[in-house]
Amino acid sequence: MTVAYRESKANYSGIKPDIYEIIDLETVERDLYNILSDSKGCVREMCSHIMSAGGKRIRPLLVMCCGLVFSPQSPELVHAASAAELIHMASLVHDDIIDESCMRRSRPSINKLWGNHFAVLCGDYLFAKAFGILAQDRLLKSMSYMVEAVQSMCRGEISQAHDRHSTRVNMKRYYERISEKTAIFLKCCCMSGAAAAGADIRSLEAVGEYGLNLGLAFQIVDDILDFCGNADIMGKPKGEDLCQGNITIPIVLLQKNHKYAEWINGVIQGRAYPENVMDEVLKALEDSGAIADSFRAAGRHISKAKTSLKALPASKYTELLFRLTDIVKSRIK
Amino acid sequence: MTVAYRESKANYSGIKPDIYEIIDLETVERDLYNILSDSKGCVREMCSHIMSAGGKRIRPLLVMCCGLVFSPQSPELVHAASAAELIHMASLVHDDIIDESCMRRSRPSINKLWGNHFAVLCGDYLFAKAFGILAQDRLLKSMSYMVEAVQSMCRGEISQAHDRHSTRVNMKRYYERISEKTAIFLKCCCMSGAAAAGADIRSLEAVGEYGLNLGLAFQIVDDILDFCGNADIMGKPKGEDLCQGNITIPIVLLQKNHKYAEWINGVIQGRAYPENVMDEVLKALEDSGAIADSFRAAGRHISKAKTSLKALPASKYTELLFRLTDIVKSRIK
Repeated sequence: MTVAYRESKANYSGIKPDIYEIIDLETVERDLYNILSDSKGCVREMCSHIMSAGGKRIRPLLVMCCGLVFSPQSPELVHAASAAELIHMASLVHDDIIDESCMRRSRPSINKLWGNHFAVLCGDYLFAKAFGILAQDRLLKSMSYMVEAVQSMCRGEISQAHDRHSTRVNMKRYYERISEKTAIFLKCCCMSGAAAAGADIRSLEAVGEYGLNLGLAFQIVDDILDFCGNADIMGKPKGEDLCQGNITIPIVLLQKNHKYAEWINGVIQGRAYPENVMDEVLKALEDSGAIADSFRAAGRHISKAKTSLKALPASKYTELLFRLTDIVKSRIK
Repeated sequence: MTVAYRESKANYSGIKPDIYEIIDLETVERDLYNILSDSKGCVREMCSHIMSAGGKRIRPLLVMCCGLVFSPQSPELVHAASAAELIHMASLVHDDIIDESCMRRSRPSINKLWGNHFAVLCGDYLFAKAFGILAQDRLLKSMSYMVEAVQSMCRGEISQAHDRHSTRVNMKRYYERISEKTAIFLKCCCMSGAAAAGADIRSLEAVGEYGLNLGLAFQIVDDILDFCGNADIMGKPKGEDLCQGNITIPIVLLQKNHKYAEWINGVIQGRAYPENVMDEVLKALEDSGAIADSFRAAGRHISKAKTSLKALPASKYTELLFRLTDIVKSRIK
């Protein structure tokens, strides 16, 4: 399992290998392996499949880093990091059922290989494992944050499904959704790590603010890249979100422009797109300044995330959290 | 919501209304309502649908009763009871996706009304709510028991799916599966309640043993009733388990009988049954003594459950736990 993880690290664009030297994610990886090692039969095969697919491990990275700002590495902190990744894994397995996805991390998804039946149970099993490990270590605050993250992701997924092909997604609703879907989980990871390391309330709030804004920036950049990223790197065709009726910040901004509003609303509501419409949408997003404005929105959250870090004690871990914001930013260059 | 619950109570065959007078399940019902009241939109509608469908509330009943043996009613005990029911609700919502069921408690299932997409999320939301309420009250032992219950149910469901139409289900495998699917959850409910009420280790073990055996007896009786219960009361045609390839104790016992072994193995493996085969199976189960032996197996667990209660302090709640075993038994008359 560890080998596949090492390979996946090398593939992750943006996060430099030296970050993984500062933060001991190998220990988290071993811990995840141990936690899942008591599973049997088909559950074990599914867990093994998920583990060996690797991943960025961004959530355990945040848990670890935000904990290490306050205390040296402890088994509890490592468990808090593993729990965050288990919850992330569980949500991915369930997401793939929801989206009827056949692929995940360049491999067939659990639902594709084992069917929806086992995929539902596999996700439930991973959720239970995550809460089990936190209960075992009496990490009550971390547990409350992880509960908040799961509830929030559920709400976000449901909002997204409700808003599909809707022209009524405004900036408030978009922010609500990306907070629920992505940013609150990152916020909760940061707070879980800091809480497991005994941080005070003021510091907890600061790392929470950092995680939330990092998450918002990350999702906004992702939503921009959906339109103007390299299709090969992104692994999906340009404008895939819009095709699926998922209305993101560049489109919300384009709707505000009188010149394009009526036209883009027609595109949003249509479920079958005329040929080349995506090229026109991309041109409109560039010409109207919607892409540039989206960049600026991401930049504001990066700045807010950086400002939050000023409340933390200076350390190489605080420095690393600072660098992580620049990595998010560098994806849009 | 409470009205529907009262109605559902009246409908439950076996549990007498006076049990609900000894155990204050109205408070649990209000607590469940409160816990779910902060949900919004579609999540709220789904939760409301589940709550108003009612149910036997057997798990919160066990949590409450096993707690009250040791301490007077406390908000923590009520929360532990609610958490058990939330986990049960979540597992039912996910089970219906797995089984592609359209009905649950005489109403359309969540997946039928809202689709698999929302049903997966609704289950996840309920799981998170359950663990959230336990974390909030610092009920770490209860949490560990609920984690064990969820993991166990996942394993049991997966075993059941694996063993479908298999002739290799022996008594050991059958017991393993019904423990994982049903009995361990009841055991964990009993232990969760007792732990929340501060019971000592010996008492925890005793209520655990009680819950496990009650659960085994309950499931065995359910599996017998699948063949010889009243189809109208059971709400499904006779022999439905066998039709779905789910091999239960009466069939495992029949397989051991040389006269019927080869024939019943052919029936198990066949996925399309000749007309009237179920009448022949029922006759074979009666004639071979498989039904009677299954009854005896259930009886042995009832006796074990009763014996476990001897380790508990005498009280009206211990008496009630005793009566609950007779209710399980009375279903087979």
